Amino acid sequence: MTPLEEHTQKRAALINADRAFRVDHTRLPHSMELCADKIARRIRTEEATTVWGVEHENVPHPFPGMEFLTGKAIISSTRLFGIIRKMPKGALLHAHLDLTVDPYTLLHFALRYPSFHIRSSEVITSSNISSIVPEIRPLAPDFPAEASSLTDPSYPPMSWVPFSRARERFDETFGGPEGFDRWVTGYMSINPSAAYVTHNNNIRIWDKFRSAALLNMNIVYYTPLWRQYIRQFLEDIAADGILYVEVRINFTRRFMVGADGKMDVPHIEWLKIFKQVVDNFKQEREDFFDAKVIYTVIRDCDAAGLEEHLEDCLVMKKEFPDTIVGFDLVGDENILIPLKDYLEPLLQFKERQKHEGVSIPYIFHAGETCGDGTKADENLYDAILLGTKRIGHGFSLVKHPKLMQICREQGIALEVCPISNEILRLTASMPMHPLPILLNHGVPVALSSDDPAIFQNIGLSYDFYQVVVASEVTGLLTLAHLARDSITYSMLEGAEKVKLMQMWEDRWFKFLLELVSSEKGQN
Amino acid sequence: MTPLEEHTQKRAALINADRAFRVDHTRLPHSMELCADKIARRIRTEEATTVWGVEHENVPHPFPGMEFLTGKAIISSTRLFGIIRKMPKGALLHAHLDLTVDPYTLLHFALRYPSFHIRSSEVITSSNISSIVPEIRPLAPDFPAEASSLTDPSYPPMSWVPFSRARERFDETFGGPEGFDRWVTGYMSINPSAAYVTHNNNIRIWDKFRSAALLNMNIVYYTPLWRQYIRQFLEDIAADGILYVEVRINFTRRFMVGADGKMDVPHIEWLKIFKQVVDNFKQEREDFFDAKVIYTVIRDCDAAGLEEHLEDCLVMKKEFPDTIVGFDLVGDENILIPLKDYLEPLLQFKERQKHEGVSIPYIFHAGETCGDGTKADENLYDAILLGTKRIGHGFSLVKHPKLMQICREQGIALEVCPISNEILRLTASMPMHPLPILLNHGVPVALSSDDPAIFQNIGLSYDFYQVVVASEVTGLLTLAHLARDSITYSMLEGAEKVKLMQMWEDRWFKFLLELVSSEKGQN
Repeated sequence: MTPLEEHTQKRAALINADRAFRVDHTRLPHSMELCADKIARRIRTEEATTVWGVEHENVPHPFPGMEFLTGKAIISSTRLFGIIRKMPKGALLHAHLDLTVDPYTLLHFALRYPSFHIRSSEVITSSNISSIVPEIRPLAPDFPAEASSLTDPSYPPMSWVPFSRARERFDETFGGPEGFDRWVTGYMSINPSAAYVTHNNNIRIWDKFRSAALLNMNIVYYTPLWRQYIRQFLEDIAADGILYVEVRINFTRRFMVGADGKMDVPHIEWLKIFKQVVDNFKQEREDFFDAKVIYTVIRDCDAAGLEEHLEDCLVMKKEFPDTIVGFDLVGDENILIPLKDYLEPLLQFKERQKHEGVSIPYIFHAGETCGDGTKADENLYDAILLGTKRIGHGFSLVKHPKLMQICREQGIALEVCPISNEILRLTASMPMHPLPILLNHGVPVALSSDDPAIFQNIGLSYDFYQVVVASEVTGLLTLAHLARDSITYSMLEGAEKVKLMQMWEDRWFKFLLELVSSEKGQN
Repeated sequence: MTPLEEHTQKRAALINADRAFRVDHTRLPHSMELCADKIARRIRTEEATTVWGVEHENVPHPFPGMEFLTGKAIISSTRLFGIIRKMPKGALLHAHLDLTVDPYTLLHFALRYPSFHIRSSEVITSSNISSIVPEIRPLAPDFPAEASSLTDPSYPPMSWVPFSRARERFDETFGGPEGFDRWVTGYMSINPSAAYVTHNNNIRIWDKFRSAALLNMNIVYYTPLWRQYIRQFLEDIAADGILYVEVRINFTRRFMVGADGKMDVPHIEWLKIFKQVVDNFKQEREDFFDAKVIYTVIRDCDAAGLEEHLEDCLVMKKEFPDTIVGFDLVGDENILIPLKDYLEPLLQFKERQKHEGVSIPYIFHAGETCGDGTKADENLYDAILLGTKRIGHGFSLVKHPKLMQICREQGIALEVCPISNEILRLTASMPMHPLPILLNHGVPVALSSDDPAIFQNIGLSYDFYQVVVASEVTGLLTLAHLARDSITYSMLEGAEKVKLMQMWEDRWFKFLLELVSSEKGQN
């Protein structure tokens, strides 16, 4: 053997050893999978030049995996995105229900209810329109309007205007009703200039996030709209090929606003409606399997407050044993309370569950941070020791060799949210994202969308796309394995899980057949 | 044991296991080291609030480890930087000699030689001054000036103007001679607006880098100035506490320009001067150990061209056996030729060395990329298989579990250049940098400055600072271990290495003594 031959042989063996833990390395693909993967790789390579290698109007110097909010229109126009859009996605394991529906749709839902009102701290003028965030709330049906236009110079600050009237009378200077829509929805999501210029770091962008989240939530938590909202969420994800979801509902508010404008609708009602809508949807749609709920609460209460929530969660679990599948604490880990400070109630709750004969596994957010050894980073240790079944984000897990090993060996999957991480400035673009580190270390991963209302990544296709264009190793087949893993690491058990997996495999087979035959037709 | 006690115990053990590979975890510190580390951590915590937690003029929303070019003035003003500046740094193992001296200093060196001329493709006006890059070259001593001012409306494009005359006659509108300095040096380095706005990604920023590098190099490769330049380099690094350097010299140009303006000074002369300057410096300065050379060539020649360079390197090694300590290929790995395409000559050269009884280890650049499975990323496989002693950058190594293991087990150190990586947009800021991943996986690391002329990070203090403020795990003691490792993983051998290590330990002890006693005085 010549030295060159020897090198070549050793090289292949080394690459093999290096990728041994990868999800796409250990499983044997069938020939149609290989063929589809090859087609997708070919199109990706072509579009790297034809789409990402040329200048676009308003998008100078694009590149594959670029900032999502800037590149979204280009992404949507690609052939590769068209393929991914059709692919069955498996389970969506990390999404916050109150931030999942497109703001424009949500705004138009609100317009149907006369209860919704809007107000602002000043008359809206051209000089403050891009800085004053309005407040929107459902009030009592007989609430007397306090003003009729936010843009009228006579508008008394902080007076409530009926929502639809405020829209109709939004001054023409600002685009009239359509201008009103742009104005309001602009504050309900994060725009490129906030993410990539004015608030371009992980500390600052959270200000925008919180403000946008609050606007959305104040509309969502209204019983008459809640029903419609959940239906819309299910339609959106089903249309994107998502078969099953374990959605996080934020139960921090004790009550939702009811049709009478009173904030008195308890948690149990929220879930009753959720279950009705899901059951109806399942009956109507053969292409959707189910939706379950992870009970979440914002990590800013004290230990006693958390105990109350855990108790509430237990009550709900007993009432809806098939719906509640986990418990989680949410919010900016960099500034809010770490798991370490909640150990006593969280450990007690595990004992309590044994005693009550129920199982509400922890599915904790942890390590959603660039910090090294900070409280957000160290949440990973506590989450794992508390027996978390999956980890929400786990962005900083890659720093921890022992924890990566534990996740691999004990099957603790990471709910990785690529676009969320990028917009919240944990990574500047997808090529910098640590996902390849996780994949190569054999950490199980389920790709997720997190808060699509705010990030504008409804479904999973955008996240799948961003992942696959930022790597030469990852391909369509890798995405398929990640979709399979989203089912494997769901909280479903036994026959249910088998059934969903079979449903996915059937859809995947149909998808492959269509892709391969349509490509044959083209060549 | 209560569940809480059990958790607490397991937590400590888990953190311990997770950090077991760290350089600062396995070595027992002495009490003064612990004390100094504690002082630095206290100051870091204070300054996180008093310095990084407040708004600065021209630097809105600063944060520890922020973009270096924007935050440099703030960094320089901190007490922690003052401490790090005084700390002995060990060895500088990754720097490109032709890009190490501050552009302003270099420009003023050039002004002393009447041979230097400057020209531009147009008359410099207010509308093109920020886009036209001038060309600077040493010409023959008797070269007749072709024009006398770049800003005079009658300037014939591309006519050579004597450098100092061009400076004197630079129009007052543009700041006169000082404006000239700002204008020229602006093109010799990368400014914040290029790095963070106009060229804000790893593909585009290389355009700026190449243009700036060329300007510097056309001044540096002039024999009369070369001597002075090397002296300046040594003074700068010694002033920053660097005791030893293995500097990369770019031998891609066959000849340097001599005093007579002819480009005919061969490589052997370059090294002769280098050695003279270093020997003089060593004799004068007790605080400096030595400087050696890694022969480098740009990775854009064909295989035959590389063979010629390898042959040249061998000749030089025989002539300067104690000076040449390695061979490397340099330049943007994303677009230039990968090691894979040079295997034949590189493998042959290893045989050749055995035959000739010399040893010129490979110290390859590899993985300086955000790519995943790209040719730049895969250079890592070939570098390691070719027996590289260290890896230049290895930014993408963190993706490769097997390669990290090999580096740890075989002692292949990474020359990590934090500020270079950030300005070249591999990472958006230090909190996103993969260094903690390397440290926690036990990959040996030597921090380096790369191209301080372009990045404005002369010495190692800035890189040390950026690393230590972006982590709660890494402390002053970690930096000390990295400094020790820079000596351990240098190409020095036997008694020489022992001597340098002892020199460092003595300096470190003095540094500790001073720090600890000055702090005692303050409290």
